[in-house]
Amino acid sequence: MSILSDVTALSAVARLAGTLPTADEAAAQDARARQTSLTKPPGSLGRLEELAVFMAGWQATPRPEITRAQALVFAGNHGVCAQGVNPFPQEVTAQMVANFEAGGAAINQLCRASGAELAVIALDLDRPTADITEGPAMSEAETLAELRRGAEAVPEGAQVVILGEMGIGNSTIAAALACASFGGDAEGWIGRGTGSDVDGLARKADAVRRACARHAGVEGAALLAALGGREQAAICGAVLEARARRIPVILDGFICTAATAPLFKADPSLLDHCLVGHVSREPGHARLLEAIGKAPVLSLDMALGEGSGAALALGVLRAALECHNGMATFAEAGVAGG
Amino acid sequence: MSILSDVTALSAVARLAGTLPTADEAAAQDARARQTSLTKPPGSLGRLEELAVFMAGWQATPRPEITRAQALVFAGNHGVCAQGVNPFPQEVTAQMVANFEAGGAAINQLCRASGAELAVIALDLDRPTADITEGPAMSEAETLAELRRGAEAVPEGAQVVILGEMGIGNSTIAAALACASFGGDAEGWIGRGTGSDVDGLARKADAVRRACARHAGVEGAALLAALGGREQAAICGAVLEARARRIPVILDGFICTAATAPLFKADPSLLDHCLVGHVSREPGHARLLEAIGKAPVLSLDMALGEGSGAALALGVLRAALECHNGMATFAEAGVAGG
Repeated sequence: MSILSDVTALSAVARLAGTLPTADEAAAQDARARQTSLTKPPGSLGRLEELAVFMAGWQATPRPEITRAQALVFAGNHGVCAQGVNPFPQEVTAQMVANFEAGGAAINQLCRASGAELAVIALDLDRPTADITEGPAMSEAETLAELRRGAEAVPEGAQVVILGEMGIGNSTIAAALACASFGGDAEGWIGRGTGSDVDGLARKADAVRRACARHAGVEGAALLAALGGREQAAICGAVLEARARRIPVILDGFICTAATAPLFKADPSLLDHCLVGHVSREPGHARLLEAIGKAPVLSLDMALGEGSGAALALGVLRAALECHNGMATFAEAGVAGG
Repeated sequence: MSILSDVTALSAVARLAGTLPTADEAAAQDARARQTSLTKPPGSLGRLEELAVFMAGWQATPRPEITRAQALVFAGNHGVCAQGVNPFPQEVTAQMVANFEAGGAAINQLCRASGAELAVIALDLDRPTADITEGPAMSEAETLAELRRGAEAVPEGAQVVILGEMGIGNSTIAAALACASFGGDAEGWIGRGTGSDVDGLARKADAVRRACARHAGVEGAALLAALGGREQAAICGAVLEARARRIPVILDGFICTAATAPLFKADPSLLDHCLVGHVSREPGHARLLEAIGKAPVLSLDMALGEGSGAALALGVLRAALECHNGMATFAEAGVAGG
């Protein structure tokens, strides 16, 4: 059973918003009060204080904790690769999934460093979605199935979920989702991705332009079927399931954030429990974060995907909670100024 | 024996530059080559790649590691407090040192979170330095003694040193050091510090202006005696000793970075082995980083000091090395594109 078990149409996703839990304001307020009592000038831990209060609200306790952090990396393949948008063959998606499973990728090291469990979910890599320049990526039924797979990947007991992706061609999918969701020229949403050259960039822009024109008028969660992909839908499913269970989420870079744009367009509050771990070097990401009104935790000039920036941000989130829970108050420490 | 054992005049500090080891370019180059062989698009780990290469150069090995990280927090008191530059009494410095020793401060939690040992060195808190608006903070002999104390605090076996400070009034000292080193109006270098109000800010600006006027013409390491303080000199001593032993350093925020401005002015290369952990909310810090040509690792709206931003950055540095050492190469993983 997941939040999506009874959802039988993409148009129903927007209506979930009113049924989902919100942050516990009383717990958040208690956490804010605790922050002002700790031995430091008020506000001097900056973003760390905000993160502790955010966690308190979603965990509904003034003393939030992270015992179990779960990273979920969804992988998919994309028919839009027929447009020559990526210099690498689609086989690389499966090769990288094997690398994840063998522990050799960046996300493996970053999850170990920040204390997250990693699950990699390969979504029918031998069945790429359809080419979005020619028609919808997936049927509504397929999209709902991938949403459910994403929801079901959120394990019992997770206290924070880190989301990431892998899929040759999916920076083009991300640009199309962002462009269709927030408008503007295709060029403003594309970047070098895995390593496009100038000609590759032109092909990406052209593919995004044609895909957006073909699916003009599609809105909200239906964008996932028109312009998305399997991993994009699974990411959205995990976001919704985490929300239903009040589990905070850390989104990764451009592709992961763009995957959630259809949810934002369906109802912006669907992303209230989501942090964005970092701002990517992909030029569309800063623009996307502006559009959805989220400030990244980190800015390290990264552009890898896999959940790498989100896993790094988990380290900051853990540090924020260490300070929140472990520091002495002015009264406890006998320090003047409280 | 430390790098400063035979230094008998502040004017000799600049001459150390030519005698100190530099980064091993061959090791750095090998590390760069390894980065391009790892299973990710070239450069996609951004700042993490730079950090790994930086560590390789200073540790003189293509596979750098951090087994032992040492945080050093130096505390001092300042005669400039007589100018009403800080709303808190000087007793708070000793109270916070006691809090550090009891494990109740932010830096304790952040060192635990990032795996750093913490040593707190209280520098004669009952003997504040002289008021810099009226004369030099310290004699040359006192300044050299504090430089040596800082150098001697760097323990055997440390592979990275995190520097921090505590001292009521020392954001005024930092502004004076920065203003005297890099020019501009006093107002451009001051900020709220521990919590100054508008009147307090005016008093800070006035104190910085008068101090810089009184010590006009003082240059390089001699600035530490004129406008510095005990913890500022100790920070410089630790920076120099770490350099002599090729140990990379992570500087903290505005006050810690400003403490090293006299070294930069003596010879900019004296800071080549230093990273800056974060950019503080204190408005002078971004300006100071621009002046010394260093990009911060983090930007989290913090303004606490204690080494807090540097300790957080250690987590990023550790993650960078986990990726560098733990990832598979394209050849090892059988992934196309290497």
